[in-house]
Amino acid sequence: MQVNGQTLRTIWFDEDSGEIRIIDQTGLPHRFETICLGSFADACHAIESMQVRGAPLIGITAAFGVYLALREDGDGADLEKICQRLLQTRPTAINLYWALQRVREHLLVLPAGKRCAAALRLARELADEDAAACSAIGDHGLQLFEQAWQAKLRRDPAAQRLNVLTHCNAGWLATVDWGTALAPIYKAHALGIPVHVWVDETRPRNQGAFLTAWELQQQGIAHTVIVDNAGGHLMQHGEVDLCIVGSDRTTASGDVCNKIGTYLKALAAHDNGIPFYVALPVSTIDFALDDGVREIPIEQRHASEVSHMQGLDEQGALTRVQVMSGHSAVSNYGFDVTPARLVTALITERGVFAPSRESLQVLQTP
Amino acid sequence: MQVNGQTLRTIWFDEDSGEIRIIDQTGLPHRFETICLGSFADACHAIESMQVRGAPLIGITAAFGVYLALREDGDGADLEKICQRLLQTRPTAINLYWALQRVREHLLVLPAGKRCAAALRLARELADEDAAACSAIGDHGLQLFEQAWQAKLRRDPAAQRLNVLTHCNAGWLATVDWGTALAPIYKAHALGIPVHVWVDETRPRNQGAFLTAWELQQQGIAHTVIVDNAGGHLMQHGEVDLCIVGSDRTTASGDVCNKIGTYLKALAAHDNGIPFYVALPVSTIDFALDDGVREIPIEQRHASEVSHMQGLDEQGALTRVQVMSGHSAVSNYGFDVTPARLVTALITERGVFAPSRESLQVLQTP
Repeated sequence: MQVNGQTLRTIWFDEDSGEIRIIDQTGLPHRFETICLGSFADACHAIESMQVRGAPLIGITAAFGVYLALREDGDGADLEKICQRLLQTRPTAINLYWALQRVREHLLVLPAGKRCAAALRLARELADEDAAACSAIGDHGLQLFEQAWQAKLRRDPAAQRLNVLTHCNAGWLATVDWGTALAPIYKAHALGIPVHVWVDETRPRNQGAFLTAWELQQQGIAHTVIVDNAGGHLMQHGEVDLCIVGSDRTTASGDVCNKIGTYLKALAAHDNGIPFYVALPVSTIDFALDDGVREIPIEQRHASEVSHMQGLDEQGALTRVQVMSGHSAVSNYGFDVTPARLVTALITERGVFAPSRESLQVLQTP
Repeated sequence: MQVNGQTLRTIWFDEDSGEIRIIDQTGLPHRFETICLGSFADACHAIESMQVRGAPLIGITAAFGVYLALREDGDGADLEKICQRLLQTRPTAINLYWALQRVREHLLVLPAGKRCAAALRLARELADEDAAACSAIGDHGLQLFEQAWQAKLRRDPAAQRLNVLTHCNAGWLATVDWGTALAPIYKAHALGIPVHVWVDETRPRNQGAFLTAWELQQQGIAHTVIVDNAGGHLMQHGEVDLCIVGSDRTTASGDVCNKIGTYLKALAAHDNGIPFYVALPVSTIDFALDDGVREIPIEQRHASEVSHMQGLDEQGALTRVQVMSGHSAVSNYGFDVTPARLVTALITERGVFAPSRESLQVLQTP
């Protein structure tokens, strides 16, 4: 994807310097900065502080984190301990578990002296795989977008735009490249479909207003930021043609765990007969789980994410302000679960699937 | 209600000074201040800038505004022009129309020289009526709360609290006293029911985090602020026993127009079998309307309410920060409509009613 006209990924190995570099997403959209992950601690901090976020990107960052730990600790490195530490960084995303599983399996069969170089090679391979998977998600989603646009034109030959609503950021910033939910949007735009995106602000961390809006603006795609409360009203009034979101974890039966508030948008889409698509790499599916609402642990994050907000003050300086009384209790759940019955289809790199156990089981084999 | 232990209303005529005074709600919860409405322009500004807000309070403020205009213009005052100007201040709330209608009918039959004093008397009467209506709403709602608490205790004798979710501010700050949605909460608390309130932050203007949380804290009621995205998750996990909100306009068939995002919470309550109550004075019902989604005009407000947020900086100064990139378009609808089919019951000062034309028609006669 493009940033100020330059092609970039969210994480990469810099051949010249031998550094792992990332886009530090905590300053966006106000401050664009790339930083070096110089140590294992840096990698853990990057995930915990959400310098990198989004289930796929967390997994890839963890893989690079294993490499950094092995580089630091040499032949005496304790792979289990390293993976345990990384697993603690964010509890909800299954990709983290999945990526570390792959890394462990790959490295454990190698002699200690060969693991470090192999870890770097594997992390880079996983990054390339993620980018390819997201591109394929974009291709499969594109077909649904084309159908939706043709159907809209048949109903209204004067239609000006295909209105897509998305929640949070499942764009290229949440992955290595392309994104999941935004990948079909980028591909549709490139094909000339006049996509317009309603961008949910996505409190408490505002990843919609901060990241999705920034991404779309960088790629020149029409979009409008709305508060999370507004989507239902827009759907009631025919202003949304389809919804598309990402997933942090998907059960074998098609329940989708995604950013808190996704469930509310799925209810509204269902109530108004609007397709609700979820775009995800197959690695997001946790075949060990069935009932998402009961079985997926939901991360509770710090109250300050709700009570404080970061923005530019009138002098253009990045400032944190307290946006409520300091006397009230706060609760801050990071995710919710959208039951499969509210999901129209799951868009994966291996095609489009109904959200059901029968449909998804084919994906259990590579 | 109490502020720092002192009993106050949101708007009142001060006998000593002859002034109309209000609580300036724009500084809450960080700054508590009462100000004088010294002129008709002050009254219009108070409504437009949301120093006063909430459908009932807007109506009462408009009534005092007519008095201020008559005091300024003397016998030559143009009552129609005054009412027209006030009607423009906020387009959605029906109470504004209703209050001005009552003022006009009352004054038009009087000789010009008697209108000013009569306008003040009437505004004060309307204020007293509003406080009494809200208290009655509280009494009727209290019965539903008692039933809910007894039912919860039967299911779980160890239950610690009755969990109520509310959206926006329909508390005493939205009325003259008591509030609508919060009135039953205040009465239940006084009766010893251990109420705990989930307070939706309510973007974009944060009336939940700013006003409802402040009100509840002043009255010593347990509450937790959550982002607007969180309510569905809490409902899925049994953490909400009932929802209660206010209404800015209600149709003859029971559709409810309230703060943007109310519809999403009603969908979630319905999906989880949780009662969804709407508390409103009968003056909020617009018997001329049937289909709320199609017929109620929805106010669009300034983009800066979404793009900027006010809070305390680290030095404790009230600061406005821009919370998104300045390059994105923004849309800002103020209200949405919850169809009657998602509403469990309407709680009015005249009793509890099913949200249907048949049930509500008795209220059409005084």
